[in-house]
Amino acid sequence: MTAIAELVAALAPEKVLTDPDVTDTYSRDQTFVEPGRPLAVVLAHSRDDVVAVMRWATAHRVPVVPRGAGTGLAGGATAVEGCVVLALHKMAAVRELSPDDEIAVVEPGVITADLDRAAREHGLMYAPDPSSYEISTIGGNLATNAGGLRCVKYGVTRDSALGLEVVLADGRVIDTGRRTVKGVTGYDLTGLFVGSEGTLGVITAATVRLRRAPSVSPATIGAEFASLRDAAAAVSAIIAAGCQPSLLEMLDRTTLKAIDDWRNIGLADSTRAMLIAQSDAADGAAVSARMAELCTANGASFVAVSSSARETEELIGIRRMAYRAQERLGKCLVEDVCVPRSALPYMIEKIEAIAAGHGVLISTVAHAGDGNLHPVFIFDRALAEPPAAVWTAADEVFREALGMGGTLTGEHGVGLLKRRWLSLETGPVTEELHHGIKQVFDPLGILNPGKAI
Amino acid sequence: MTAIAELVAALAPEKVLTDPDVTDTYSRDQTFVEPGRPLAVVLAHSRDDVVAVMRWATAHRVPVVPRGAGTGLAGGATAVEGCVVLALHKMAAVRELSPDDEIAVVEPGVITADLDRAAREHGLMYAPDPSSYEISTIGGNLATNAGGLRCVKYGVTRDSALGLEVVLADGRVIDTGRRTVKGVTGYDLTGLFVGSEGTLGVITAATVRLRRAPSVSPATIGAEFASLRDAAAAVSAIIAAGCQPSLLEMLDRTTLKAIDDWRNIGLADSTRAMLIAQSDAADGAAVSARMAELCTANGASFVAVSSSARETEELIGIRRMAYRAQERLGKCLVEDVCVPRSALPYMIEKIEAIAAGHGVLISTVAHAGDGNLHPVFIFDRALAEPPAAVWTAADEVFREALGMGGTLTGEHGVGLLKRRWLSLETGPVTEELHHGIKQVFDPLGILNPGKAI
Ligand SMILES: Cc1cc2nc3c(=O)[nH]c(=O)nc-3n(C[C@H](O)[C@H](O)[C@H](O)COP(=O)(O)OP(=O)(O)OC[C@H]3O[C@@H](n4cnc5c(N)ncnc54)[C@H](O)[C@@H]3O)c2cc1C
Ligand SMILES: Cc1cc2nc3c(=O)[nH]c(=O)nc-3n(C[C@H](O)[C@H](O)[C@H](O)COP(=O)(O)OP(=O)(O)OC[C@H]3O[C@@H](n4cnc5c(N)ncnc54)[C@H](O)[C@@H]3O)c2cc1C
Repeated sequence: MTAIAELVAALAPEKVLTDPDVTDTYSRDQTFVEPGRPLAVVLAHSRDDVVAVMRWATAHRVPVVPRGAGTGLAGGATAVEGCVVLALHKMAAVRELSPDDEIAVVEPGVITADLDRAAREHGLMYAPDPSSYEISTIGGNLATNAGGLRCVKYGVTRDSALGLEVVLADGRVIDTGRRTVKGVTGYDLTGLFVGSEGTLGVITAATVRLRRAPSVSPATIGAEFASLRDAAAAVSAIIAAGCQPSLLEMLDRTTLKAIDDWRNIGLADSTRAMLIAQSDAADGAAVSARMAELCTANGASFVAVSSSARETEELIGIRRMAYRAQERLGKCLVEDVCVPRSALPYMIEKIEAIAAGHGVLISTVAHAGDGNLHPVFIFDRALAEPPAAVWTAADEVFREALGMGGTLTGEHGVGLLKRRWLSLETGPVTEELHHGIKQVFDPLGILNPGKAI
Repeated sequence: MTAIAELVAALAPEKVLTDPDVTDTYSRDQTFVEPGRPLAVVLAHSRDDVVAVMRWATAHRVPVVPRGAGTGLAGGATAVEGCVVLALHKMAAVRELSPDDEIAVVEPGVITADLDRAAREHGLMYAPDPSSYEISTIGGNLATNAGGLRCVKYGVTRDSALGLEVVLADGRVIDTGRRTVKGVTGYDLTGLFVGSEGTLGVITAATVRLRRAPSVSPATIGAEFASLRDAAAAVSAIIAAGCQPSLLEMLDRTTLKAIDDWRNIGLADSTRAMLIAQSDAADGAAVSARMAELCTANGASFVAVSSSARETEELIGIRRMAYRAQERLGKCLVEDVCVPRSALPYMIEKIEAIAAGHGVLISTVAHAGDGNLHPVFIFDRALAEPPAAVWTAADEVFREALGMGGTLTGEHGVGLLKRRWLSLETGPVTEELHHGIKQVFDPLGILNPGKAI
């Protein structure tokens, strides 16, 4: 029996896809990275399917690439030559939702926003909300430790992960963490799997923390500025004043222009940056008024304060449209540096200078309240890969961010795309430890090889 | 040259203590555990001292027990025979405090409350506040992932740890994490060191997150109940109503009686439990009024609402006195189970039944909002160790907590005292992974051997 025939026998024919036209669509994420050709794509329906795949992969030394929805921006879910892509999107049950304990137990294929909606029915919310939350999976969010718009107030995915069910490289299953909000028994394996990008194990279920949904509909402002620097100064002022926004996003002119060209948002000629801020606190209206004042004091040319849920949706919609609008301009290399909050204005100026210096088009959005910037390098659609000038500019952006005490990636992960720069941030001893840990969990190196570390 | 002479030469004579009377006081934590005799105690003054100790220890295969303030309740800092106790309390500088980035960089010997006070000067706070915060160190808090009173709202120590400087077993130094609030480059080594109880490396500095201090002085209530079950029901009601208390503590009658006998707090005969709750929200007074109502609705016989900072201090003072009052009753085995919040009433009844069943005196306080209970087993001061009945009762408490989906230890750690039960919670595969990780960081097994895993 061939290896693939064994795999089919261990699962079921309809769960094992081998037609290249079909497998190709499961081989890519949202990056331009050209994938290797997988042996097969497995559509897992249960933990037992995942166990069967990992046992088989261990026996045959076949690499396995876990995959959620393929919305990743770092190449993490890109197929490697001769691998099995282990697609988890069919495992999409919310196994339990306990309003009393404010937790949910979910399978990895649950769409992020679906979990949030399920929680809302009980007056709760699932806080981490990447911009992609209508299309990304919880498993992918956990594996990348995804951030999102609300994480300026509620923290990243790790802060909502209490426990995991994980299938190890050899098919053994462990439960990490717990159902309680606190606990310190043993090393924090939950935290270790979160953000490990599918290189240490396959997450087949998660116990996540829910939070009380705010009782008021959040008060939202949109502020336009004639300079990016003023917008960044307003961000600092809002944080320093203790406003604790539940969302604080920034868009530059290139991005706003792309959105305006696509959807006509009535962009003023003088607007070079826009801030969108929200407070979901009990006194949110007062806080938003204060944030509006701080924007005006820092030079905003125009501040809109939403007076209805529809107006709020429109403002947030501008932010959520950004990536699709950028994609209309060309192929995108989406970057993800994060700097200490006080460095935000400097980093923004650096990005502008680097773009100008290399004649590269950069469109920047930022989870500004966290200092997390997404400079999107836009290049000719006809090219398979970014041209040299883009890589040079990106390299400068990374080095500047690291020089300010920042990091290469705030939320998207290292994947394939950032491995080249990894050692600039981590150094040789930490890399040795990373590889030592990898060796403990995956001694044959079959789990998502060549990614993350 | 003897090994100790080499150590003295590498440091300085006054940093190496060998007089048994002196070393004995550095060999114990707050438990009754009888320590082994250390070769020496080193008073580290700098990272370089720590590096020198670890290089020397690696060369001579000598076990090293890191030590903060020795306030631990699990035996984690207990000296093992022939070890060097590496005392870090002299490394107590706040290296940096950045109000703009809302972070501080501190040495491990900084007393927890001192950091909080330093932050308050800038309108900020350091949130994690174990009851021991006037005597414990940040290094010990990180190594145990300490909780505290405010963690029901602000999370545990891990949630405030952004980056660490760590000296590895062989004396090499790494920096984990970052100065930014977000970041996903590489595996989460920061999270792995936090809670590792000195078994993976010695923390010599930490970058911690500060938070805006609440602008209002928190409104506080103290509610007395004629039954523990009613008090637990009030806890559930407060959480379910979305009050988001910044503190929610419970004390049972045995504890209250011990405090009353010591400090006369005017305890009523009918009071069997007390809740102390606080809200530091902008609308805290209204929230506290709501919490008071919920206590009354759940059968509270008396509810005090503080109307001044002094009254607040008095209420919180009752909670902070608990341990000293318990110690007046005899020797204490302080336990630390944590259960899902909805299980709190059941767990409390179980503890009462177990105490009665074994004729053991148990005095319970709880970080009730987190489901974290401290049943304190009190036994005869003349005994060196808890009698068999106490261990049997403790064993039953652990098994009940685990059966409810809880954990052996919410915040104190496994140390020496809970290792016997560890495998009940973790299982053999997880234990194998723990030991694999330990092997990566400390191949000679010299760092705090016999603890935590
Ligand atoms: C328009 C758009 C907006 C975005 N906005 C944000 C944002 O605001 N914040 C943010 O953080 N990200 C954002 N992203 C990136 C992306 O959505 C996230 O990284 C997301 O977490 C990926 O989820 P996924 O299910 O698509 O995972 P995939 O892309 O399928 O996989 C991502 C990684 O996780 C691994 N993986 C997936 N599932 C599992 C599992 N069950 N077990 C183990 N490993 C697994 C994969 O191997 C891969 O390494 C955005 C992407 C797009 C396209
Ligand atoms: C009255 C009282 C109340 C308490 N209340 C709480 C509470 O509310 N919440 C709570 O969580 N705990 C509480 N504790 C327990 C204790 O205070 C905490 O565990 C605290 O974090 C220990 O800090 P320490 O500096 O005393 O550490 P130590 O007791 O000296 O050491 C604790 C552990 O950390 C390791 N360690 C210490 N420093 C380092 C370092 N720099 N690098 C690596 N490893 C290190 C030690 O080896 C040991 O394993 C309480 C204790 C008492 C006595």
